[in-house]
Amino acid sequence: MSRVGSIFNLANCINTIVLLIQKINNNISCRMHFNVDVIMAKSEKTNHHKQTVADYLIESLKNYGVSHIFGVPGDYILDFFNKLVHTNGINVVTTCDEQGAALAADAYARIKGIGVVCVTYSVGGLKIVNAVAQAFSEKSPLVIISGAPGINKRHGNRFLPHHKVQNFDTQQKIFEHITIDSALIQDPFSATREIDRVLSSAISYKLPVYLELPQDMEELRIVNTDNRNLGNNSFSTPYISSDIGQKLFNGTDDEELKEALSESLEMIKSSKKPVIIAGVELHRFGLQDKLLQLVEKTKIPVVSTLLSKSVVNESNTHYLGVYSGNMSKEHVQRYVESSDCVIMIGVFLTNVTFGITDNPIDKSRCIYIAKDNISIKFHNYKNIRFEDFLDGLIQNIENNNLQNSQIYSENARYDFSPSNTDNHITSKSSTKITVKRLFEILDTSLSENNIVIADVGDSLFGSIDLTSPNSTSFLSPAFYLSMGFAVPASIGAQLANSNFRSIVLVGDGAFQMTGMEVSTIAKLNLNPIIIILNNFGYRTERAILDGPFNDLQMWNYSKIPSVLGKGKGFVVETEEQFIHFLTVAKNTTNDFCLLDVHLDPSDASSALKRLSKGLKKK
Amino acid sequence: MSRVGSIFNLANCINTIVLLIQKINNNISCRMHFNVDVIMAKSEKTNHHKQTVADYLIESLKNYGVSHIFGVPGDYILDFFNKLVHTNGINVVTTCDEQGAALAADAYARIKGIGVVCVTYSVGGLKIVNAVAQAFSEKSPLVIISGAPGINKRHGNRFLPHHKVQNFDTQQKIFEHITIDSALIQDPFSATREIDRVLSSAISYKLPVYLELPQDMEELRIVNTDNRNLGNNSFSTPYISSDIGQKLFNGTDDEELKEALSESLEMIKSSKKPVIIAGVELHRFGLQDKLLQLVEKTKIPVVSTLLSKSVVNESNTHYLGVYSGNMSKEHVQRYVESSDCVIMIGVFLTNVTFGITDNPIDKSRCIYIAKDNISIKFHNYKNIRFEDFLDGLIQNIENNNLQNSQIYSENARYDFSPSNTDNHITSKSSTKITVKRLFEILDTSLSENNIVIADVGDSLFGSIDLTSPNSTSFLSPAFYLSMGFAVPASIGAQLANSNFRSIVLVGDGAFQMTGMEVSTIAKLNLNPIIIILNNFGYRTERAILDGPFNDLQMWNYSKIPSVLGKGKGFVVETEEQFIHFLTVAKNTTNDFCLLDVHLDPSDASSALKRLSKGLKKK
Repeated sequence: MSRVGSIFNLANCINTIVLLIQKINNNISCRMHFNVDVIMAKSEKTNHHKQTVADYLIESLKNYGVSHIFGVPGDYILDFFNKLVHTNGINVVTTCDEQGAALAADAYARIKGIGVVCVTYSVGGLKIVNAVAQAFSEKSPLVIISGAPGINKRHGNRFLPHHKVQNFDTQQKIFEHITIDSALIQDPFSATREIDRVLSSAISYKLPVYLELPQDMEELRIVNTDNRNLGNNSFSTPYISSDIGQKLFNGTDDEELKEALSESLEMIKSSKKPVIIAGVELHRFGLQDKLLQLVEKTKIPVVSTLLSKSVVNESNTHYLGVYSGNMSKEHVQRYVESSDCVIMIGVFLTNVTFGITDNPIDKSRCIYIAKDNISIKFHNYKNIRFEDFLDGLIQNIENNNLQNSQIYSENARYDFSPSNTDNHITSKSSTKITVKRLFEILDTSLSENNIVIADVGDSLFGSIDLTSPNSTSFLSPAFYLSMGFAVPASIGAQLANSNFRSIVLVGDGAFQMTGMEVSTIAKLNLNPIIIILNNFGYRTERAILDGPFNDLQMWNYSKIPSVLGKGKGFVVETEEQFIHFLTVAKNTTNDFCLLDVHLDPSDASSALKRLSKGLKKK
Repeated sequence: MSRVGSIFNLANCINTIVLLIQKINNNISCRMHFNVDVIMAKSEKTNHHKQTVADYLIESLKNYGVSHIFGVPGDYILDFFNKLVHTNGINVVTTCDEQGAALAADAYARIKGIGVVCVTYSVGGLKIVNAVAQAFSEKSPLVIISGAPGINKRHGNRFLPHHKVQNFDTQQKIFEHITIDSALIQDPFSATREIDRVLSSAISYKLPVYLELPQDMEELRIVNTDNRNLGNNSFSTPYISSDIGQKLFNGTDDEELKEALSESLEMIKSSKKPVIIAGVELHRFGLQDKLLQLVEKTKIPVVSTLLSKSVVNESNTHYLGVYSGNMSKEHVQRYVESSDCVIMIGVFLTNVTFGITDNPIDKSRCIYIAKDNISIKFHNYKNIRFEDFLDGLIQNIENNNLQNSQIYSENARYDFSPSNTDNHITSKSSTKITVKRLFEILDTSLSENNIVIADVGDSLFGSIDLTSPNSTSFLSPAFYLSMGFAVPASIGAQLANSNFRSIVLVGDGAFQMTGMEVSTIAKLNLNPIIIILNNFGYRTERAILDGPFNDLQMWNYSKIPSVLGKGKGFVVETEEQFIHFLTVAKNTTNDFCLLDVHLDPSDASSALKRLSKGLKKK
């Protein structure tokens, strides 16, 4: 057995070297990007034959860079939790409710490139369907591991096991609608292949995947029956072929690429006022450096979307602001919507991106480059990979004369950079705090190590006015818009990057959904600053249609620390208090702080005011 | 148009009368039970042609007896919420999170025979998948109404609307796995037919159903194109034909019924120690009176299951206790497992019913009567309706001589009635409170108007020792076992029956999941007594396999009222304090009370001790 193991190790080693040489020869680092990650990760592995299925899964996750696993235990997954807590390099983070675990793992995945949530069968798994749907909608590589009744208990004339819904595969079938790939581990022969494929699908597509681990499979020793195709499986066919999956599979056709590039370069060259909308896929697929190259070379002004906010360092001289249709700052909206060449890169074409209106930007002046589609004006290119097009653009655009654009770009900055006149902070003001001033004061207070996590509502819309100090320093579910993200997400964010200190912006409505995960924050000794925009109800809904259904029970949020025996709570009514307690919070680095900011129920950010106008029109 | 309306009304009227006459002629009230409900409900309706789709839906729900609708608003369902709050006879109950709304509506459905949860698209709907799965598993007629993007917005080359996951029908597809019937309202012609069918499926099968109401459908005026088949549609074929649906459709074959009855009567007659296990379907299908008739006539001892606890008034002289395999009290387990004729009526054959062991009761001595199966010993009867068999048994068993059974039944009571020796309450005791004493003290304190709602864990297992004062005075998710049911369920229970005062039994782990719905309790001025069995972690899991994953952040639960500005909180350490604060709570009828009962982490009910032994063996 050990000889067979050695031969496999040797084969793996040779395979790895061959693929590394191929990579060097290819010299297209981008195209090999994911493969190489996989290869590097896998070459570290030891003899698989000594491993159980659970061992192999945990080691694979570690090799992908996972160091924290979020979840809530339950009897079908208890042995796996026990194994996890005894694994060096893995920290198990249990939350109050499974929903919180999934949201934390989603945030972790958005920052670290992979996140894992581990739950029990049905009563755990089915609690996180919404959180996983959000990860799917917004391309977050979230791995769901669910315990389940043993394979050997699924046959014959037995009693129904507890937690079972309709059929044994009901949970997996539900997850097939909201994941790119899934597998039920059902024997030790296929286990490694299934685990490899599912995990690499998450990494390749930046989408959630589902792994079901029956109780009687965990401790089986894996058996390798095939010469495992290391490295290549990152583009193997997923079990579930969704539309997105199909589209991603096309390789690049050189002729098509040539035509598309030439057409695009011509459009850009002849344009007088080009603009780049930098979307969230640039962040998810690690292409932020390429964006910077493009911007630096061309000096074309760049905007982000709400979902991709902070994809560009917002102090970049070419950065104009967040574009979000009529929610945008006026100068940003005016610039983008009057541009004669809008280059959208990795942008989701959602109604939120465009301020809940249809089509403010005419397709005839668009170059659209994304993971699942490349289109110019009204026609599409089916066989061009996102990364190849971006590389081609960067390489070839240098040879063009972009004087026109440069002028407009520089004009743009001159004309449109936001004035700082009303941004000074005075601690003398005892004026009642407003949403506008809250964001202005916060904007001047952000540090390099802050990550702003905005929940759905005015917390998000108001953030349009914040300058993110770094790339990846803003997180929000800005397309799917499910309330209750921010508090649990702050846990995932700070664990994904221990340098971060989270600033959580959350409305009272969203806080009442998942806010009690501050309990997990307390348990882990994390130190986010949680700012509750307390406007006594669902403010965004009031803007659309008000009624008693938008009223909430008033909580004394600042007393929550007394329930948890940890944390500091403050009530904020005035600007002065906000400035003061924000400073206190920033100086309190060893505990979480909770600022209950009382806002006028009718007050709103200017973005929300514009949005509600748009929604009412609809 | 109004003339057409009058003709339709006349036709409906005639139809109603004809069906009522048929009913009287048939003289089989049970078989017509649901049809009649539907007829009675529908005969009250006015001219449909003046109604919008939303009006029709709301009126239908009112006719089925709905007076409270639970939910959380969102923009796709906002207009419908607005219409609901302006409808006489409908109370809208908004909760902190959608999960809480669904659990409250499930409890309401279990008591009132129908419950409604109303949510927005995806971000609302997908949050309640687990709660709906629980309702499905435990046969609760829960109606889900979800808002959605307009039908006219689903076509063409538009931007993705916010909240969309993969396809427009992703949410409906997911719900098809956990509902008996579903419909997307997509035109005003079929709307009434779809609404009728889906609602009557919920009533007929006692299972959840899903209705998707796109924004642009709500306000359309309904158009009736067919002579609506009033009354009969309660057994129309549901859109989704699950296994359960198929089984329920068979009518009764008289020959089969005759054979099965004769066989059963013979088995019962010749048995020396028969016992009835009364299952939850008796409660769901309103057959508790028939059970009582059977028990009173035959004097056969009767037990309930954990899921059906309180299906029989527990002070009934023939009632032995809760049977739950090795979790049962010893005398109950011994009696049932040594019986030579076990008559299971409406019992779910789950591992929880039998104490997480396989088959302690030999099939060769079983008569199994349930909604989806009738079987005697090892053979099945496919064409007998549950209610018909039960009626046949009651009618024919009178003519048999049941002396043997009677003797054993009376012996049983003599031998096995629980002793009361250690049940006396003394307020002098300053002994540390134990789980055993908690339940003993509580047992002597329950009043006629109390409904005990037990969450999953020792709250549930310990309840085996409680005597439910009435029928339908105990609620728990005792098969699906999803934690976090009890606090939200208490809202639904008290609104379903305003005479109820809920006693909520909830572990600290379950409370941390959904306990903050006490906020909704505060908002509605409800007065449950919430008893937190605080054993500092997941006690049931500790019994199986312990580790740091079973530890929870310690909360000062008694301080939660100070966060909510309502309610009273007490810390309980001793028996004396428990007796005292329970009395205080009972006397505090205008507010909710929260007792944080500190238990030794290693303490457990005797049922849990037995269960964990069983699980460890597994």
